Amino acid sequence: MESETHLLRTAEDVRAAGDNVLRGGAFKPSTSPYEFQGLGEKGLKLLAKARRATGLAVVTELLSETHAGLVAEYTDIIQIGARNSQNFQLLIAAARTGKPILLKRGLSMKIEEWLLAGEYVLSSGNCNLMFCERGIRTFETYTRNTLDLSTIPIIKQESHCPIVIDPSQGAGRADLVKAMCKGAVAMGADALLIEVHPNPAEAWSDGTQQLSLELFAQLMRELRPLILAAGRE
Amino acid sequence: MESETHLLRTAEDVRAAGDNVLRGGAFKPSTSPYEFQGLGEKGLKLLAKARRATGLAVVTELLSETHAGLVAEYTDIIQIGARNSQNFQLLIAAARTGKPILLKRGLSMKIEEWLLAGEYVLSSGNCNLMFCERGIRTFETYTRNTLDLSTIPIIKQESHCPIVIDPSQGAGRADLVKAMCKGAVAMGADALLIEVHPNPAEAWSDGTQQLSLELFAQLMRELRPLILAAGRE
Amino acid sequence: MESETHLLRTAEDVRAAGDNVLRGGAFKPSTSPYEFQGLGEKGLKLLAKARRATGLAVVTELLSETHAGLVAEYTDIIQIGARNSQNFQLLIAAARTGKPILLKRGLSMKIEEWLLAGEYVLSSGNCNLMFCERGIRTFETYTRNTLDLSTIPIIKQESHCPIVIDPSQGAGRADLVKAMCKGAVAMGADALLIEVHPNPAEAWSDGTQQLSLELFAQLMRELRPLILAAGRE
Amino acid sequence: MESETHLLRTAEDVRAAGDNVLRGGAFKPSTSPYEFQGLGEKGLKLLAKARRATGLAVVTELLSETHAGLVAEYTDIIQIGARNSQNFQLLIAAARTGKPILLKRGLSMKIEEWLLAGEYVLSSGNCNLMFCERGIRTFETYTRNTLDLSTIPIIKQESHCPIVIDPSQGAGRADLVKAMCKGAVAMGADALLIEVHPNPAEAWSDGTQQLSLELFAQLMRELRPLILAAGRE
Repeated sequence: MESETHLLRTAEDVRAAGDNVLRGGAFKPSTSPYEFQGLGEKGLKLLAKARRATGLAVVTELLSETHAGLVAEYTDIIQIGARNSQNFQLLIAAARTGKPILLKRGLSMKIEEWLLAGEYVLSSGNCNLMFCERGIRTFETYTRNTLDLSTIPIIKQESHCPIVIDPSQGAGRADLVKAMCKGAVAMGADALLIEVHPNPAEAWSDGTQQLSLELFAQLMRELRPLILAAGRE
Repeated sequence: MESETHLLRTAEDVRAAGDNVLRGGAFKPSTSPYEFQGLGEKGLKLLAKARRATGLAVVTELLSETHAGLVAEYTDIIQIGARNSQNFQLLIAAARTGKPILLKRGLSMKIEEWLLAGEYVLSSGNCNLMFCERGIRTFETYTRNTLDLSTIPIIKQESHCPIVIDPSQGAGRADLVKAMCKGAVAMGADALLIEVHPNPAEAWSDGTQQLSLELFAQLMRELRPLILAAGRE
Repeated sequence: MESETHLLRTAEDVRAAGDNVLRGGAFKPSTSPYEFQGLGEKGLKLLAKARRATGLAVVTELLSETHAGLVAEYTDIIQIGARNSQNFQLLIAAARTGKPILLKRGLSMKIEEWLLAGEYVLSSGNCNLMFCERGIRTFETYTRNTLDLSTIPIIKQESHCPIVIDPSQGAGRADLVKAMCKGAVAMGADALLIEVHPNPAEAWSDGTQQLSLELFAQLMRELRPLILAAGRE
Repeated sequence: MESETHLLRTAEDVRAAGDNVLRGGAFKPSTSPYEFQGLGEKGLKLLAKARRATGLAVVTELLSETHAGLVAEYTDIIQIGARNSQNFQLLIAAARTGKPILLKRGLSMKIEEWLLAGEYVLSSGNCNLMFCERGIRTFETYTRNTLDLSTIPIIKQESHCPIVIDPSQGAGRADLVKAMCKGAVAMGADALLIEVHPNPAEAWSDGTQQLSLELFAQLMRELRPLILAAGRE
């Protein structure tokens, strides 16, 4: 989320392609304090504007317990990022807002630990929990992370919650996103989280993993037969 | 491969379900010298018998340079296992038999190293090389290994060789094999390597990762719509 | 930290053996919400009591931004645990108390990311930062984690901050702690973080990695010649 | 091992510094078939010459079962490299020469698997087995591998065999070798394997991890007090 124009253009295009939820980062957990930290509350307001303009539901990441109320005012779904996946106080604060929670898997989180982190949400009285696989940290360097698609059948087996797949973070390379999405859909993933940018070559961050709006629309078309073959709509 | 009856029964049943290649282990690379080491040449003869009886092509693993000629007499495809994936002398000896080579990815082999190990086959004058992903070693313990399905688009991008997926070793759990196969097919895998046993509960090794012959036949039926959706036959 | 008697007995004994800082967990980041979560503020008060009784400085973990003021009242050093090592809001809140910060390395944190997490403390105006290596997550299962002692020369090379080694978490086995401490001291570690318990067999958590008070005293004696050989006091 | 002059100069200098075993690579397991593969038998002859000239014992790597007899003629100790650590046929062929075996740990080998690979040597009737830790493959990229010094107490606990530490491969950086050696000695390592080169900046391979002969001599002097403090000679 870089500017109002950028966000609204993206929101309209992904909606036209068939998407129904929009994620935008208002608070950004940058590895370095000297990098872009997100637009903060101004970003939340932009997201709300995009929601009104398009009817898309919105998701954004919560980074601080003290922002839980503020973020809940503007968003439909609260994301807990990989770095905070075992920040249990944040999980509880997010859960108590009553908003649905999208819980990303930590970089080296065992599936058992992920399920137990989810229990911090559920035992706070919030049963709207989604797990999101975004790749684990391994020795491989060709991809940014190793996307673990076995989480799809496992989360279905071990919990009643939906499983979302994030191939953009998982692979860290736009050229692999299409194939990863196809595999995820065929395996029964309940949703996909795909990074798009009107002009990936000029993105402020992670440009190499973002799809252009054209490629996104094409991907949506190519996924349809697999969605049907997997018995979904 | 435990006995003649076991092998022939399995070969007939998988063939009836639509399979066309049979793998059997004659020489077994056991982690411990005190475990079952395979039936050796007797095993190769059984494989040849199953081939004659069913018309299936056969694959078996080569463990020693000194067996290259012997193994090549009996098999259609030579497998180089994960533990020997950087045993370059073995790769060269296998390549020189002229038989197609199925090169498994090592447990902690980077994709670049795998491609370069493949170059030992190709530069020995043998261009019938297949790469086989069988899961990498990570911190996760729910599954035996982490099956890295991103290798499907990557091998297609970086080489001209087919990519085979082994979900049985990859997941180490029969209950995950079906979903992993569906993902692999949707992503464009050229073949699947699936462990089956007439009675998994009584298998001499790796019983928890083997499909019964009934489940295998059912899986083959369920894969068909995905194979078609992926534009293959 | 299980009770007042337990804590005071431990504090007195480790002090007699030559120790000068005491860590006690008041807020405990348990993997599961259904496990013991620590004694909370009551625990902080016990720590303060142990400090008064023995003159030891105390360290305790901060889990929530909203507790930063409370914890800073009672402790001399604030620990940021491995699970929160990239919880940047917590790092900033801790740094702003002005107390020295002990920053544990995350389970799969690259050294570069660890140094950058430390920059969140330093750039908040707090230069009393210590890095604490506590083992990384690898495929090995003999030990709980893999203690990466190369961090000792690396942190010294890349920063001006002290490096503390935690062999108890690192190995997860009391029988390896002595050797790991000797290595750390010879390599120039600035401090050791060692878990002790008056009766490890009855510890409420992590009993297998805790030293008895007798073994701790013996370890302190055995380390002396190495401390001198390493040119320290 | 690049040439006769290079080898003899190195052998004389390390001997003068107090070393008593010389490793040289005659057969080199290069990741790519298009890289330098070693001098082969010519290299073995050079090693024998260096042995005669200096009285140093020599170690070299065996890559092929078919070379076992040849290599055994020229060397005092046979090294089995990390890539062949589960090449069980090679282990058996090496063991049967009767020469002492130096068994490197595989890049992602669990300690239990390493001990079992050693059993292939022991159960072949050769009890002169040494384990050599050379770093495992992890997510960290600052170092080439993660040197796991916990193997020192573990191998001593689980076997009767010596444990050798290879910090050059382990860290992959000459600037870390000194500290890693100090740690290893303090923890009870039985030997160190250190890569040296008369002129690291011009080495044909792995130059960044090799010590100059001057730094090697200085390291040997600095290790002495620690060797004594560890109760060894």
